[in-house]
Amino acid sequence: MNHRILAFALGLLAVSGGAMAVEGKWTPSQILELDPQWLHAQGLEVAPETLWSRDGGGLLEAAVRISGCSAGFISARGLLITNHHCAFSILQQHSTPQRDLITDGFLARTPAEELPGSGSRATIPHRVTDVTAEVEAAVPAGADDLARFQAIERKKKELVAACERQESRRCEVATFDGGVRYLLNESLEYPDVRLVYAPPRAVGEYGGEVDNWSWPRHTGDFALLRVYAAPDGRPAARADGNVPYPPKHSFPVAARGVEPDGFVMLVGYPGRTFRSFTAAEMAERAELYYPGLSALYRAWLDLMEAASAKDETARIALADRIKGLENNEKNARGQVAGIRRGHILERKAGSEREILAWAARHQDQAAGAVAAHDELARRVAERRCTWDRDFLLDRMKQGPKPLDLALTLVRWAGEKAKPDIEREPDYQERNRDILRERLERDQKRMHLPTDAALLTDVLARLAALPAAPADSRVPAVEAFVGGTRDRAALRPRVDDLLSHTQVTDLAERKKMFDESAEQLQARHDPLLDLAFGLDAELKALKERNDRFEGAVSRLRPRWQRAVIAHAGKPVAPDANGTLRLTLAHVQGYSPRDGVWMRPQTTVGGVVEKHTGEEPFAVPPALLAAAPQAPRSRWADPKLKDVPVNFLADADTTGGNSGSPVLNGRGEVVGVNFDRVWENVANDFGYDPGVARNVSVDVRYLLWMLETLKGEAARPLLEEMGMAGKAP
Amino acid sequence: MNHRILAFALGLLAVSGGAMAVEGKWTPSQILELDPQWLHAQGLEVAPETLWSRDGGGLLEAAVRISGCSAGFISARGLLITNHHCAFSILQQHSTPQRDLITDGFLARTPAEELPGSGSRATIPHRVTDVTAEVEAAVPAGADDLARFQAIERKKKELVAACERQESRRCEVATFDGGVRYLLNESLEYPDVRLVYAPPRAVGEYGGEVDNWSWPRHTGDFALLRVYAAPDGRPAARADGNVPYPPKHSFPVAARGVEPDGFVMLVGYPGRTFRSFTAAEMAERAELYYPGLSALYRAWLDLMEAASAKDETARIALADRIKGLENNEKNARGQVAGIRRGHILERKAGSEREILAWAARHQDQAAGAVAAHDELARRVAERRCTWDRDFLLDRMKQGPKPLDLALTLVRWAGEKAKPDIEREPDYQERNRDILRERLERDQKRMHLPTDAALLTDVLARLAALPAAPADSRVPAVEAFVGGTRDRAALRPRVDDLLSHTQVTDLAERKKMFDESAEQLQARHDPLLDLAFGLDAELKALKERNDRFEGAVSRLRPRWQRAVIAHAGKPVAPDANGTLRLTLAHVQGYSPRDGVWMRPQTTVGGVVEKHTGEEPFAVPPALLAAAPQAPRSRWADPKLKDVPVNFLADADTTGGNSGSPVLNGRGEVVGVNFDRVWENVANDFGYDPGVARNVSVDVRYLLWMLETLKGEAARPLLEEMGMAGKAP
Repeated sequence: MNHRILAFALGLLAVSGGAMAVEGKWTPSQILELDPQWLHAQGLEVAPETLWSRDGGGLLEAAVRISGCSAGFISARGLLITNHHCAFSILQQHSTPQRDLITDGFLARTPAEELPGSGSRATIPHRVTDVTAEVEAAVPAGADDLARFQAIERKKKELVAACERQESRRCEVATFDGGVRYLLNESLEYPDVRLVYAPPRAVGEYGGEVDNWSWPRHTGDFALLRVYAAPDGRPAARADGNVPYPPKHSFPVAARGVEPDGFVMLVGYPGRTFRSFTAAEMAERAELYYPGLSALYRAWLDLMEAASAKDETARIALADRIKGLENNEKNARGQVAGIRRGHILERKAGSEREILAWAARHQDQAAGAVAAHDELARRVAERRCTWDRDFLLDRMKQGPKPLDLALTLVRWAGEKAKPDIEREPDYQERNRDILRERLERDQKRMHLPTDAALLTDVLARLAALPAAPADSRVPAVEAFVGGTRDRAALRPRVDDLLSHTQVTDLAERKKMFDESAEQLQARHDPLLDLAFGLDAELKALKERNDRFEGAVSRLRPRWQRAVIAHAGKPVAPDANGTLRLTLAHVQGYSPRDGVWMRPQTTVGGVVEKHTGEEPFAVPPALLAAAPQAPRSRWADPKLKDVPVNFLADADTTGGNSGSPVLNGRGEVVGVNFDRVWENVANDFGYDPGVARNVSVDVRYLLWMLETLKGEAARPLLEEMGMAGKAP
Repeated sequence: MNHRILAFALGLLAVSGGAMAVEGKWTPSQILELDPQWLHAQGLEVAPETLWSRDGGGLLEAAVRISGCSAGFISARGLLITNHHCAFSILQQHSTPQRDLITDGFLARTPAEELPGSGSRATIPHRVTDVTAEVEAAVPAGADDLARFQAIERKKKELVAACERQESRRCEVATFDGGVRYLLNESLEYPDVRLVYAPPRAVGEYGGEVDNWSWPRHTGDFALLRVYAAPDGRPAARADGNVPYPPKHSFPVAARGVEPDGFVMLVGYPGRTFRSFTAAEMAERAELYYPGLSALYRAWLDLMEAASAKDETARIALADRIKGLENNEKNARGQVAGIRRGHILERKAGSEREILAWAARHQDQAAGAVAAHDELARRVAERRCTWDRDFLLDRMKQGPKPLDLALTLVRWAGEKAKPDIEREPDYQERNRDILRERLERDQKRMHLPTDAALLTDVLARLAALPAAPADSRVPAVEAFVGGTRDRAALRPRVDDLLSHTQVTDLAERKKMFDESAEQLQARHDPLLDLAFGLDAELKALKERNDRFEGAVSRLRPRWQRAVIAHAGKPVAPDANGTLRLTLAHVQGYSPRDGVWMRPQTTVGGVVEKHTGEEPFAVPPALLAAAPQAPRSRWADPKLKDVPVNFLADADTTGGNSGSPVLNGRGEVVGVNFDRVWENVANDFGYDPGVARNVSVDVRYLLWMLETLKGEAARPLLEEMGMAGKAP
């Protein structure tokens, strides 16, 4: 088996004449299934068992999760490296008009100055247990797909609940490829995380949305955090007596950096990919989901951006909502373009035909695979009948914030009345504090005139749904609009509703959070009333989706086992938020005929892009220091300048933000923060020609600290082992 | 001297490690001053004397001028290769809604089908005579700068008139570097030029304004024309008895094409560059002229584009006016950016300081140079006082077409009353037919509602000029606006004017062309009245400019001789519309940190850009043929596809459009059609890092003819020596 991988890799080498493209977000244990000689030929200089031992655990455990991002320990005193955008919420919490940390950046000169982040939690891997048999056994004989889904969910919750009865545990059952395997991931959750260093926004977000998902890139998307623990090392709520957490493993920082064709590996928690999807499921994404998402978010963004341009209060309130939507909108467009460019649907359909033919000939290795595939295709086709309505209902919480809050309150009131084990996961007791914090934090993110426009938009879209052939109308919306389908005529009704609701009042909302559904109903709050109606639709939608997921859990594993058997070699499972390693090489790419993207950018390039206007306004201190960068100890000898960002062909996705990028010795050479636009559809298939992730070179961070922060940064550089060390 | 050039070139080679950058638009006779061994090392495979003999004349004479473009003979039967955009006006003349040659392209299957182009003239070089002494001798002792200018102009006209008394001669006295030399260029003008082949606009303008001035490029900007002559070979007006003109020289077509680092040379008629400008003159361009031009044309384009978007008639009428303005506007922006990027002002000032210091020490070689430099700087400074008014007056003919026509009629009426020799060159008898044709042709280019908006804009800008400190108000405008300075209030006055003028009526305009100034005044046509007032301003402006030019003709040669003496090697003079050769190598470039532009694009790249919408709508036949391109005989073995466009570091400017691109054997490998955006400021200084011109590969033309036109194109391919010839 390992020889086949080697032959495959050598074949690629022969074709590309250079560094090898290495597809796969490998689970830690899969690393041990790969040929060690092949890994060495790739550039791995340490024994694979150093990364992950046969008993579980190893250097890779130095990679942790934080705020939906990845991060990595880089000192024995709990220092974490991650992205600027992953630490952004802490900057936001501590920023005031008088002390604008977002704009200025932040450096703690002493441990006492480090800034606690409310809601930021470091999730540190602890133990992994295979629970596949237990989960499968929980499904009663003869269960239909809904019952099957519910039984699996219940079992997963029971396993999580039992796990979390241990102190400070954060547990989850991760599903691999729709149910091929279920693993119970046990983590320790440290809620006392503090900001140590973040660059000015103009560095951390340099290029902003203009450069997002693109290359060449010049973004200092890095930040340093520190995890604190109780004096005995256990997780503890923020307290003055807490001490820096001493991690089991940490990554040394490499001062030497990367160079073209050099081997790198990324470790982190990629969120979700869809490579095990069948062609029918991919077509649904490519033809309905992403184009719909792009159009809807674009419309909302237009409203929000117009408000921000006119009004400073709106700009501040909407900043990170806009950022989130923009990111998703650009991603959606990239998915559509990338799926087309990479002929991903056609390739998927082709390989599926091949596997179907193979499976028909190898019933011993692929029992029921063909039937499973065909049934899955039928279930997907059924979803098209009410696609527009279901899509709008599913997305509406991402638009008008008051509606989002009301829907959360209503659902929470309903769910909390149930026994914990029967609740939806997001509304279980373990998430109570997260929910409450979010309801509070969102007060800063509301801008009523804009939210009125967004709510009008959502209702107008729902009111415009057809009554035939499939009745897509939503009773709660029909009741509210009272036959008014005209957008302009709806707006006064929405304004009236928002002027009478108390959901937008923080104090009242805190009270509502503790009330029962009956108490909420008794308020006769017009927004809560609307939310109750919409919540009923969401529940019905959820039931349809749950039934579909039940079918998937029954069908996909059968099919996917045939796919793996047909491959005859390790197949990396789809990303599912669990710890993964991807192997890569630093290299450029050609996005289109006539253009070659070089794999590295420099401080000189940062200055070259400087216009003085956002998002290309380099802070004066950096601008002044840049001419000396080529003579600093962090300058790359070949580039003759301090490197800023680099490209590699790593197999990444969302959730890999903040992933430490390691060299062959397991030392940190950078932090991953993005993919190039052409590579967004990578979630559906790996295309070696354009599969490029974007990382910030750790030498840019070191140069900035040393050059711009001077003495104040010396303790930090010492902690990273970089004080006075020549690269 | 030649050793210094060689050493200089080898120095460059050492720095770049590859192909050499070769600055200079050499005059034909300068080629013989360059070291033949160095030319050979560059890649020239024929003797320099083949290109241009010591007696004058040679292969380079196969390059001719047509419609402001360059072109090259490529057969013994008068076949010319040039750009699509240089043949565009012939396509436009013959296009009707029923027979849309612009959209469909055109191929003459027989000589009888070739389409005559009214107003298209092929200007073929015949003889060059140095007249410097004669011109200088014409200036009377003690003449002030205006008298000096007028004396020189008069002498030039006399020389031209004497020259043109020979049959079918087109003559001009070309001024080199402000007056270092004056050469009388004698050409033969062939007015019977016919269109043989043009691709569809979607090929010839592929990428349109989006790709204009940029790379990567995929434009089939080529066309084939044929020059006809009387049976005895002499120039003759279009007549059925004319025969194909047999040129003295023609360029063979090379089927082998170009490859990276390959040597190429461009021959053509570059229009105007400004490298001999002093720092003060360059600053005027960089700080006032180009920013002003960009802002003004952008405003006019906004008006014209809005009209075109709403109205199909407007779109057709305004198409080439928009194209012209867009080109100029983008150019102006590029000049500003390129001058900044290349630090051209700083470098010029630096080299000027060096030469000033050298000149002060070498009075024997640079007598009066320092004083000349300083006086020139003072004269330039004076022009700033009334810059805004003078700039608007100078540019207004490029905006509203009715005003342009009226100003031309008024000026023509005034000038034609003078003896021919005293007239402004554009209004001499020899240009009567050109003027009349333009007045007729422009009827198609008018769109009254848009022209009303443009005229309002011009008048509003003039009315907004300050009355102090320098009085910039224009009496004719003040009279018309009657104190109304508000743009909206002006519009009804302009509409009223346009509804009462007869200038926009073609029949009346033809009559006006033959009337005297008194007759025009007697018409009491409101637009003519306004034009008379503005014409008086233009005359006063012209006198100020003439005086300045007189000073330049006195001062620049003194300074420039010092510059040349200081260089101690051949210095190519600024482009002035005369025949030049530039040496180059095919090579890519880095427009910015992290990006490398490869030097060639392919048919695959054409398809890759196809969106189905203009300017990226590939014609269906090409789209269908493209997949087979890699297997055609025109495919490049390394690119594995038919090449489309290529980059070289040739030293080009406007007027080089249509320049044949030759290989080291003097064979045509392509046709130049553009420069990259980063290279626009090349007119002020050559920057080897970004000095790149864009050419279409002749193999794209050959492939299109053979693949898309089949049998119909066989005679043409045979004429080019390409029928059945393997590359």
